[in-house]
Amino acid sequence: MYSASVTAPVNIATLKYWGKRDKTLNLPTNSSISVTLSQDDLRTLTTAAASTTFDKDQLWLNGKLESLDTPRTQACLADLRKLRADVEQANADLPKLSTMKLHIVSENNFPTAAGLASSAAGFAALITAIAKLYELPQDMSELSKIARKGSGSACRSLFGGFVAWEMGDAADGQDSKAVEVAPLDHWPSMRAVILVVSDDKKDTPSTTGMQATVQTSDLFAHRVTKVVPQCFEEMKKAIVAKDFPKFTELTMKDSNSFHAVCLDSYPPIFYLNDTSKKIIKLVEAINKHATIAAYTFDAGPNAVIYYDAANEDEVLSQLYKSFGHVQGWKKAYTAETAVAGVSRIIQTSIGQGPQVTNESLINESGLPN
Amino acid sequence: MYSASVTAPVNIATLKYWGKRDKTLNLPTNSSISVTLSQDDLRTLTTAAASTTFDKDQLWLNGKLESLDTPRTQACLADLRKLRADVEQANADLPKLSTMKLHIVSENNFPTAAGLASSAAGFAALITAIAKLYELPQDMSELSKIARKGSGSACRSLFGGFVAWEMGDAADGQDSKAVEVAPLDHWPSMRAVILVVSDDKKDTPSTTGMQATVQTSDLFAHRVTKVVPQCFEEMKKAIVAKDFPKFTELTMKDSNSFHAVCLDSYPPIFYLNDTSKKIIKLVEAINKHATIAAYTFDAGPNAVIYYDAANEDEVLSQLYKSFGHVQGWKKAYTAETAVAGVSRIIQTSIGQGPQVTNESLINESGLPN
Repeated sequence: MYSASVTAPVNIATLKYWGKRDKTLNLPTNSSISVTLSQDDLRTLTTAAASTTFDKDQLWLNGKLESLDTPRTQACLADLRKLRADVEQANADLPKLSTMKLHIVSENNFPTAAGLASSAAGFAALITAIAKLYELPQDMSELSKIARKGSGSACRSLFGGFVAWEMGDAADGQDSKAVEVAPLDHWPSMRAVILVVSDDKKDTPSTTGMQATVQTSDLFAHRVTKVVPQCFEEMKKAIVAKDFPKFTELTMKDSNSFHAVCLDSYPPIFYLNDTSKKIIKLVEAINKHATIAAYTFDAGPNAVIYYDAANEDEVLSQLYKSFGHVQGWKKAYTAETAVAGVSRIIQTSIGQGPQVTNESLINESGLPN
Repeated sequence: MYSASVTAPVNIATLKYWGKRDKTLNLPTNSSISVTLSQDDLRTLTTAAASTTFDKDQLWLNGKLESLDTPRTQACLADLRKLRADVEQANADLPKLSTMKLHIVSENNFPTAAGLASSAAGFAALITAIAKLYELPQDMSELSKIARKGSGSACRSLFGGFVAWEMGDAADGQDSKAVEVAPLDHWPSMRAVILVVSDDKKDTPSTTGMQATVQTSDLFAHRVTKVVPQCFEEMKKAIVAKDFPKFTELTMKDSNSFHAVCLDSYPPIFYLNDTSKKIIKLVEAINKHATIAAYTFDAGPNAVIYYDAANEDEVLSQLYKSFGHVQGWKKAYTAETAVAGVSRIIQTSIGQGPQVTNESLINESGLPN
């Protein structure tokens, strides 16, 4: 049995991916940018093993056997096996891993109940674990194209720090890949706090929502052809210049723009709820004298607030006043009125890309530990 | 003492006015369309009186003395006096009303607590009452330009039925006026139910909000230059054709588009709350098999739902299930779960434009009754 284990991070977009121009290949209608979050707090650990004794591909996710028979996962596995076959063809001494069945075991270090989309970290870990197992020579940008087919935003989890997903324009997706904007050590003091917002309704799944927006929003085309391309360039510059106020303005405006085209869809899609709006007002109050906090909301009511470590006490003490009663704080401040609607917070920071680890989730029999 | 009394209606836009290209003249960045609501349920009654014995212009609004010293009201009064002066110049026998001070008394037949913007009906009644007092020869479209200076959407309350406010393009506003799309008797079975939504926050005033959107929303220009002009033509056609499903689609999409550019403003403006969203879902459910109800939301969380009288029981019985516990229903249906967030409903219908009335609010001494 051959095996390899890799951990991969969550990323939270500051310039949102919303809209597919090709649903099968997960090709986006606009480029996007994200911050990779620390794996100390949020990561997926995946072990991939290959053996002639395995009789079928199998996946165990958070302790449960899950299907690998989805078109997206199948596309990823086929791509990786093809790349391995190329390697094997070039060197006949190598074991024929490309012909062996795979056992994959994957675990998140954060509760599913946190309401965080884990598919990005999950596919990033899956692809990089198998690439490591297969000893593929491709770099992370190349592998990101495969991760993208699994889950669009997963491609951005193949890098640490600040990451761009260049939309590309080729029909086959060969130029739609993740690239590094700036590594973790360019701006290591970037911090994030996630406010997990309780919600009684089921959100529209992002793939469904994207398709609805692309097809029905009259404002969408303007967003992707005019607004985002300009923001993409400006946000990369703001990151390189470590210009937090500019980064913040662009991040918050893009979050608003994304939710605006959701609302402009027909029927309208709502991800923000009244608690999300309260958090927006709170961030506006925090920024009253100086711009030190940037909110962003994905396809759900949860808020992610970016700030620099230099302003940690100022940002967190303000949030603590309303949400000090929930779990997740690493330090206590002064609580005031307990505002309902947030179930927990996660304090974290910018982090690294996928990491190879010796920690294996598969035992000698090829089964989950 | 000379006096005249007029009642004027509320109108609710189905294609929203949002954005001024000239703040002083209330010139809009896009044309809009509205339905005039019945004065049986919602109207302003205004009596205007002129006398040489009055020593200053005075206004009593819902029993309280209010200032007339706002630039907008002053602009309206100056315009009307100039038109009266023209009439007097042409006929020396007429009393010189243009030189006399005015006493104006105005009352709404609906509670301010209903949360309905009453400025449209208020200015429409003010302008038409004085125009009647002055026996001005101008038609309603001409007078609508004066009402527009008082409150933009007031110009649409000068007509009954379905009304368009043509934005015009002249710098002085001479072509920015209301016109009739179709009179009340074209589609007299059009009904409306207003769901008054409770909200704990103070909404951004519409003038402030509009300016913020014009200045900061990246999607706004596309809305007013591309989306609205097309909708304007299509909605007029749908009204003329009495095509309720098309009218509904355009109305709901425009409401969504308007709230989308509010959300795309920076900082974002939110008028819809979680209750508004529940109402939207409810209307979507009502329309599941056939399109029989159209929601629209102005600059606040209140919903206005249009429907045809033929579908009244079907529409209202569905709404009654959730909101049967609040006041305002003209007929009872079967209540189910009492959904919180709505404080009352107002059942009404399409209505007529301003009406001259013998009911006077001013006594022989020139003071409020």
